[in-house]
Amino acid sequence: MATSKLQTQLLYPDLQTALELSDKEAIDEICVTLASEDLAELVIQLEPNFMAVFFEQAPEDRAIEVFQLLDVSIQKSILDSISNQRVVTIINEMDPDNRTALLEELPAHVTRQLLSFLKPRERRQAQKLLEFPKDSIGRLMTPDYLAIKQDWTVERVLDFIRRNGEDKETLNDMYVVDDKGRLVDELGIRDLLLSPLDRVVLDIMDRQFIALGADRPEVDAIQAFKKYSTRTALPVVDAEGFLLGIVTIDDILELAERETTEDIHKLGGVAALTEPYLTSPLPYMVRKRAGWLVILFISEMLTATAMGFFQDEISKAVVLALFIPLIISSGGNSGSQAASLVIRAIALGEVHFKDWPRVFRRELMSGLILGCVLGIIGLLRITIWSQFSGIYGGHWFLVAMTIFFSLIGVVAWGTLIGALFPLLLKRLGADPAASSAPFVATFIDVTGIVIYFNIALLMLRGKLL
Amino acid sequence: MATSKLQTQLLYPDLQTALELSDKEAIDEICVTLASEDLAELVIQLEPNFMAVFFEQAPEDRAIEVFQLLDVSIQKSILDSISNQRVVTIINEMDPDNRTALLEELPAHVTRQLLSFLKPRERRQAQKLLEFPKDSIGRLMTPDYLAIKQDWTVERVLDFIRRNGEDKETLNDMYVVDDKGRLVDELGIRDLLLSPLDRVVLDIMDRQFIALGADRPEVDAIQAFKKYSTRTALPVVDAEGFLLGIVTIDDILELAERETTEDIHKLGGVAALTEPYLTSPLPYMVRKRAGWLVILFISEMLTATAMGFFQDEISKAVVLALFIPLIISSGGNSGSQAASLVIRAIALGEVHFKDWPRVFRRELMSGLILGCVLGIIGLLRITIWSQFSGIYGGHWFLVAMTIFFSLIGVVAWGTLIGALFPLLLKRLGADPAASSAPFVATFIDVTGIVIYFNIALLMLRGKLL
Repeated sequence: MATSKLQTQLLYPDLQTALELSDKEAIDEICVTLASEDLAELVIQLEPNFMAVFFEQAPEDRAIEVFQLLDVSIQKSILDSISNQRVVTIINEMDPDNRTALLEELPAHVTRQLLSFLKPRERRQAQKLLEFPKDSIGRLMTPDYLAIKQDWTVERVLDFIRRNGEDKETLNDMYVVDDKGRLVDELGIRDLLLSPLDRVVLDIMDRQFIALGADRPEVDAIQAFKKYSTRTALPVVDAEGFLLGIVTIDDILELAERETTEDIHKLGGVAALTEPYLTSPLPYMVRKRAGWLVILFISEMLTATAMGFFQDEISKAVVLALFIPLIISSGGNSGSQAASLVIRAIALGEVHFKDWPRVFRRELMSGLILGCVLGIIGLLRITIWSQFSGIYGGHWFLVAMTIFFSLIGVVAWGTLIGALFPLLLKRLGADPAASSAPFVATFIDVTGIVIYFNIALLMLRGKLL
Repeated sequence: MATSKLQTQLLYPDLQTALELSDKEAIDEICVTLASEDLAELVIQLEPNFMAVFFEQAPEDRAIEVFQLLDVSIQKSILDSISNQRVVTIINEMDPDNRTALLEELPAHVTRQLLSFLKPRERRQAQKLLEFPKDSIGRLMTPDYLAIKQDWTVERVLDFIRRNGEDKETLNDMYVVDDKGRLVDELGIRDLLLSPLDRVVLDIMDRQFIALGADRPEVDAIQAFKKYSTRTALPVVDAEGFLLGIVTIDDILELAERETTEDIHKLGGVAALTEPYLTSPLPYMVRKRAGWLVILFISEMLTATAMGFFQDEISKAVVLALFIPLIISSGGNSGSQAASLVIRAIALGEVHFKDWPRVFRRELMSGLILGCVLGIIGLLRITIWSQFSGIYGGHWFLVAMTIFFSLIGVVAWGTLIGALFPLLLKRLGADPAASSAPFVATFIDVTGIVIYFNIALLMLRGKLL
């Protein structure tokens, strides 16, 4: 039957006992029972020393499979704690793309040492992959693909796969190359399985294929898989069209998930964490947060400066001070809303910089309407309150009108800034998600105070001020 | 060569002209040149009336492929604008999973009408799929899968695929069922392609398979594909283990992307939009934003109430008012940071409610450290400023100490609330992302004012107050 989460967890004590006793037979049995993904789920729960025992004692092929499913940070600590002999096995047998992902995260001297552990063929391959720029598609690539020729029959291709397919990353897609190694087409296994055995590849080909450039940034690969969403692998070529390798969807999904996490963290004003929340060390966590928090704090100090200019007005009409948090937070909230909408729309490719006039008009309208809604609520609240309490003084209606117009101004302003700031960042080549929301909020706090007191001066001069 | 974005766009004028002239030959030619995904990219840029011409005139198979790649909202308007005859063709030839996604979004009477257009077999299938609860895995399923028997040889399976594979959603995976139709194993095409032709399926099987329950929520399917990341399709069974259909990764990716968009919108305090940013009508957009904005505004009114209690203090020491935005926004920013970290960690399954004591300890420590950092900066700023200006009065040092301790208190408090509130929502069965960040910020604004003035009373009583 299907292994469920619950069943997997039930085996955790068995695994622990087996590792404690170094009982190779029991370890083997658990390894046979579970899928690698389930095994990995148990392994990451182990104490570091038991984890090391697992990777020493488990059957080679399973140890290698499970190892590749773990985060690079865990892989690093495992390599540190197991015998050199096992390190050599694992590092030689890993899929080339996973190996690159690990090697690029290690300090240079460790990478050099691990490269020296590799067999000549693997070493050449690993070095070639590491030559591609960081965050490029080349780094995601595996050279273990199926290449076929156009004059082969379907039968020959199937025979070829049976003899050479074992170590290929996927058999779902194969690549037709010319004699020089240039990519001329890609075929899905479907095209092959549905054709008579004596048909020639040339007659199945449609010469329509999507290829990724090895030097292009990773994000191109994410977008290509998103668009051609039924594809599970895409070929990678160099500038001359030579087939270098393939990128598979599992790596892309992992990458896309990491990007989304970064976006969400940035929206919250945190430098992107690369480690899971609970296991990242506290000093690391604090450092990642302190940077932006301090920048925002220092910017926010301008609110004190701005208010300093209106100190006289505040002492004359303390009632004005009461509404400051309400006014500026309304601007901040409407700004965050607009920013999160636009940031996501940019990420999904729905909005580009050239759309700014449309965004401007939409958001100005939205902001004015939303500002009116809040303004009317504020107006009502002060009107009703002042029937029962003298807190707003004799000029309560003027105070209420000040609040009304300030809310419209600040909300419309906040909405515009929130929507346009991410577009501006995008235009400047920066990441639109980079702390936009908190930065926008801070900016609106400062400017909101200026808007508020100026409207107050207009409305209340000669009365309260 | 590979079709690039640029090349695709170059064909847009040609397509438009061809549609304007209803030039069937030219339309056919463009359809042959482009992949369906590229064609879809051009089609969504067309005016609605040209879009209708496209779906009337394009070759049937391409029209159906392109139609299925569009958003449901666009599909709806196309069905409204093309001939009944084309509607019948498209609706009959769609993949069952895509058809369910469309039918479930239509008003009941339209769904009934479309069902009546279906051939009997398709209708029974569509009705069966619609019987599964909304947002369940059953609704994502397609019954077009490959089922094989365990006593077949590899050769027979390959023959079977050649004859019956045409209309199957994927040939990458096949499913071994017993005589009653119960799922007993799944095989990847790899297992088959690498085995000798005379081997019997039974000898290849490992009886290890992952199956999804048809009644389970969609999110289970997302998690399963995330965990078993090399899988491109998973089988769906009923409670008795009968194979009902399969779910493929392209549908899951689309679903996961929609969930992420919702999370990001909720973080920004917007009710999740189901339409793309630029094309959703303004009133819809404003409605989606007004709800939360009003709730936050009304909650934030408590800041005015809270400050009302300290009106006397403010009039005695206006200098205190100057720092209110700084203090409360620091609490809000640290709260947003903590909230976005914890919300994402919950979404990734890294943190659960039971972890709250650990989260509490981590965040209390982080909050105190971050509060001290900001406190020291605040202290320095006031100290330095007061050497040059009299703005903070004679008791500047007491004011500075008030700010220092308030920042520690408010930042630690904000961090704690920001981290624990999403966990609480999760515990209550609510969505942790649901407007956590702005709600937390508002809550901290109100409580931050209370903390600040109480510390001020403690520090300044008898001096300024």
